[in-house]
Amino acid sequence: MFTRIKRLLIGRPLKNDEAFYQRLPKWKALAIFSSDALSSVSYGPEQIAVVLALSGFITYGYYLYSLIPIIVLLAIVTISYAQVARANPGGGGSYSVARENLGEKPALVAGAALFTDYILTVAVSITTGTAALISAFPFIGEYKLFLDLAVLFCVLTIINLRGVSESAKFFVLPTYLFVGGILALIVMGVFQVLTGTDPVFAEASMQKQPMDMMIFFLILRAFANGCSSMTGLEAIANGVPMFKKPEYKNAIHTTYYMSGLLAIMLLGISFLMLHYHIMPEYNVTMISQIAERIVGRGYFYYFFQLVTMLILFLAANTAYNGLPPLLSIIAKDGYLPRYLGQRGERLSFSNGILLLSLATALLLIIFDGDVEHLISLYAIGVFLSFTIAQSGMVVHWLHNKSKCWQWRVFVNALGAFITGIIVLIIIVTKFFYGAWIILIFIPVVVYCFKKIKTHYTGMGRELALKPGEKFSYISSPIMKNYVILPISYPTRSVIEAMRYARKIGDEVIAVHIATDDKNADYVKKVWHVQDPEISIVTIQSPYRMVIQPLLDFVKKVAASKRPEDYITVLIPEIQTTKWWHKLLHNQTGLILRTLLIFKENVIVVTIPFRVKG
Amino acid sequence: MFTRIKRLLIGRPLKNDEAFYQRLPKWKALAIFSSDALSSVSYGPEQIAVVLALSGFITYGYYLYSLIPIIVLLAIVTISYAQVARANPGGGGSYSVARENLGEKPALVAGAALFTDYILTVAVSITTGTAALISAFPFIGEYKLFLDLAVLFCVLTIINLRGVSESAKFFVLPTYLFVGGILALIVMGVFQVLTGTDPVFAEASMQKQPMDMMIFFLILRAFANGCSSMTGLEAIANGVPMFKKPEYKNAIHTTYYMSGLLAIMLLGISFLMLHYHIMPEYNVTMISQIAERIVGRGYFYYFFQLVTMLILFLAANTAYNGLPPLLSIIAKDGYLPRYLGQRGERLSFSNGILLLSLATALLLIIFDGDVEHLISLYAIGVFLSFTIAQSGMVVHWLHNKSKCWQWRVFVNALGAFITGIIVLIIIVTKFFYGAWIILIFIPVVVYCFKKIKTHYTGMGRELALKPGEKFSYISSPIMKNYVILPISYPTRSVIEAMRYARKIGDEVIAVHIATDDKNADYVKKVWHVQDPEISIVTIQSPYRMVIQPLLDFVKKVAASKRPEDYITVLIPEIQTTKWWHKLLHNQTGLILRTLLIFKENVIVVTIPFRVKG
Repeated sequence: MFTRIKRLLIGRPLKNDEAFYQRLPKWKALAIFSSDALSSVSYGPEQIAVVLALSGFITYGYYLYSLIPIIVLLAIVTISYAQVARANPGGGGSYSVARENLGEKPALVAGAALFTDYILTVAVSITTGTAALISAFPFIGEYKLFLDLAVLFCVLTIINLRGVSESAKFFVLPTYLFVGGILALIVMGVFQVLTGTDPVFAEASMQKQPMDMMIFFLILRAFANGCSSMTGLEAIANGVPMFKKPEYKNAIHTTYYMSGLLAIMLLGISFLMLHYHIMPEYNVTMISQIAERIVGRGYFYYFFQLVTMLILFLAANTAYNGLPPLLSIIAKDGYLPRYLGQRGERLSFSNGILLLSLATALLLIIFDGDVEHLISLYAIGVFLSFTIAQSGMVVHWLHNKSKCWQWRVFVNALGAFITGIIVLIIIVTKFFYGAWIILIFIPVVVYCFKKIKTHYTGMGRELALKPGEKFSYISSPIMKNYVILPISYPTRSVIEAMRYARKIGDEVIAVHIATDDKNADYVKKVWHVQDPEISIVTIQSPYRMVIQPLLDFVKKVAASKRPEDYITVLIPEIQTTKWWHKLLHNQTGLILRTLLIFKENVIVVTIPFRVKG
Repeated sequence: MFTRIKRLLIGRPLKNDEAFYQRLPKWKALAIFSSDALSSVSYGPEQIAVVLALSGFITYGYYLYSLIPIIVLLAIVTISYAQVARANPGGGGSYSVARENLGEKPALVAGAALFTDYILTVAVSITTGTAALISAFPFIGEYKLFLDLAVLFCVLTIINLRGVSESAKFFVLPTYLFVGGILALIVMGVFQVLTGTDPVFAEASMQKQPMDMMIFFLILRAFANGCSSMTGLEAIANGVPMFKKPEYKNAIHTTYYMSGLLAIMLLGISFLMLHYHIMPEYNVTMISQIAERIVGRGYFYYFFQLVTMLILFLAANTAYNGLPPLLSIIAKDGYLPRYLGQRGERLSFSNGILLLSLATALLLIIFDGDVEHLISLYAIGVFLSFTIAQSGMVVHWLHNKSKCWQWRVFVNALGAFITGIIVLIIIVTKFFYGAWIILIFIPVVVYCFKKIKTHYTGMGRELALKPGEKFSYISSPIMKNYVILPISYPTRSVIEAMRYARKIGDEVIAVHIATDDKNADYVKKVWHVQDPEISIVTIQSPYRMVIQPLLDFVKKVAASKRPEDYITVLIPEIQTTKWWHKLLHNQTGLILRTLLIFKENVIVVTIPFRVKG
């Protein structure tokens, strides 16, 4: 039943050799890798405006002071990341770059930052995607969190468990529709501006409070918020091997196209925002307001909202393409549980996918689907991993002094330096708005990575045979296996357990835990009638406990046996077909196994006896 | 550590022969058995007034129309229950009476009703107890639910896990202080009425809307609510064996005293309520308002509130004295899990006590500690068990025609008839106020009782040996034990498992689940170097699964073996000291055991290998 539903949702299992590598032409790669970056147009400008418009001062006029540095930053990081793509034809994100060039600690920090970042990508993209839908249909606003979770589990998780090959197909059309929609909006908007009578910039949009330290800090905060527009920029550099040949050249070109498009869209949307003096509204995104002003609530408007929603969900999907392979690499390095490194039946990293979905769901539930809060957390991880990747590249160029290495060092160092500064700016300006959570979370994740690694290496050392060591089962076999079997009145389950005990044991010790003497004598008599040779050890339990006296007895036997002997404790257990029957029987076997698990050379075995009743 | 805390809270274990039977003189028995009944004075009159005062009509004047029938009812049930006490010198509540005289079904209904009833007793008594405290100190009102749960777990549960002998001591003083306090209040109040100038009954308290069907129904509902004053009346009849000799005579006298006191207190409080025209108020109980009017917020007022709180908590405690022994009787009859029938270390029925506490906590949390709702559910169970017990008595007298049996049949039949009518009245008038829950809950509980019984009898039949049947382990021992051990690279854990396998198995089958061929050959080679005789079965797993291929292999071996052979599957498992390490290893053993648990003659054994790392 469960298997059937699974087959229906996830599909048939795939063999190893069905692994799928499709080389991508530039136009497809652009769509697949840039949905995250391009979609941030739909929340980036809004994030700037939210800080400036809702602060209580008239500071909307400082909008461009926040936007222009972002565009400059975008140019620098783009050039810098083109170098990353060039140097890593094998792909691999900042974790791999750092691991290769900077060592363990920076790599783990990058890994933790990316982990945080990918979870936030999914969360932010889903919530802004449903926000686009809610702008069009406000009455579904109250089901927001429910919608978010439905998209997360019913769409993203299932598609990705089905595997990569299938999920890539969905990307191309919505991305281009979105880009086309935004560009069309900008063209129509600019046309209206030029043919209309209104001033090019609304007067209200230009109002500035005189600059002081507080205002400056506010602009910095708006800038920090706006940096969320740059998330997803690294995707192409991480995916170089998926490009058609020559891979790195195509990847670099695609990076330039993507950043160019992003810059045009950011500038265009910002221009229209200032022209119409759009203000943040509850349950209506700014980009929806712009669309409404330009084309009204007609077919194009609804189409545009739908496409916006789609591309945001696709942006969430990039995290599903990015995080599970990353977790797999980290797991193979021993910093995460090994099962995160294994591909599932459908060749996707199913455990990583489920981990990502669950972590995102937790985050959404904790923050009740509140976008603004989530975005403020978002940019730190992104820029931290930017910084680490580019620092790694600086080291890389210093070691591999290829053509123009000085220029490359300069570009990457500049990129690292500036993105590093951005991390500091975001931390300072957003500290009390949630950034502190990231500052706790990333070190905690790094600590976990290290603990896990320590555990695995320690365990590996204890498990491995010494060179030349002989298998102990050949040189020193177990001499004697004592089987301890608790009995009471003879029932079929105990008789069956005794049958097994006599097969596997060299000496069977039947134990009766007695709460009163008369009963104990009677039990002995009943057994002796049929099996005169049996010797039953009676243990008095005046406090009516069963497990403790048995435990003490096992320990006593264990203390008196030779080291090369074993003790096997058999616990007869009733097994029935209905789950609730479990509640009707005590779980002696389970408890005893837990209590004896650290006792050397003691094995606890439950002998299931199947009844129908 | 855990054991230490347990010892501190619960005390040292007690031996069987420390079981404690203290015969009670009447004055002590009155205090111990009647805290539940007498304490209901503190909410009974309020329950009547709540319906009449808050209905939106001026119907307060019908108060006496609801109260007087309750007093008459009290008299009838008291006389009837005196007969119960006479006929059951061995004690035992309506479950036992019904089981003996009416058969299985009525007994189970009584058992379910009592179960419901006891849970509600605890819930209602605790919430009204904290309500008394909140009337005195309103600022703690917002922590109500928290206080309720604290009393439940930190006081009642612990005291009762310590055992009966200790909890009885606490009863005597608070009960008499409460009775004394109420009587003092009544005397002072009546004195003030007689010496004062106000009319004896406030004019507002006498206002009546002209009677129509709706009003009549309202009075019925007020009456149904007020019947909660009679809860706890059965306690003495259930506890006859704890009285000094002559037991039943002393018990009957105590019943009369209790009912007399209850009637006086009900009438007195109701009189004062009408005199002062007390109206229900949020977070202040009516009895607290009366006390405040008569003595002001002085020492006596606070003392009185404290004593009210105490007796209510003691009333909750009567359920702890009543339900666990009842559950134990039902469990011994096979209608509940057996561990509910066993006394714990301290001779108390610990599992029943915990069950009661958990069920009550659940109820309190669901209803957010709202008293009114809980009381409306309360009376049904009480009166249903009254009805069944008295019907049982009718049958009893018809079978045991002792002296004056006609009179006894008449009294019990009248009692059964009237309480039966009350059950109907409560169901009809309170149906939409929560009574429907009980009407679903009781049959569900009865259904569970029957299912459990069916399971136990069926299982007993399957487990029992036929008369004269020989122990199978003597006549037909296991012929051959195949041991299946999954291996990969030789690590210490696998080597150790192999050592055990060779000891207990007649034939060891080493299985390697291979995801690729090269690896498989290498594994074979490594093993053969040290153990040339080993034969390794390689199973291809193209879908990278481990458990499914192993499961299929076990089933294949099981199909080909003789019926008198056994298969033992050994799963090496890493055991570490830190709990979170569990998350880092897969749980193959556990999963495999679950999947193979119904496979005849297959045993799954996990071989723990202890590492420090």
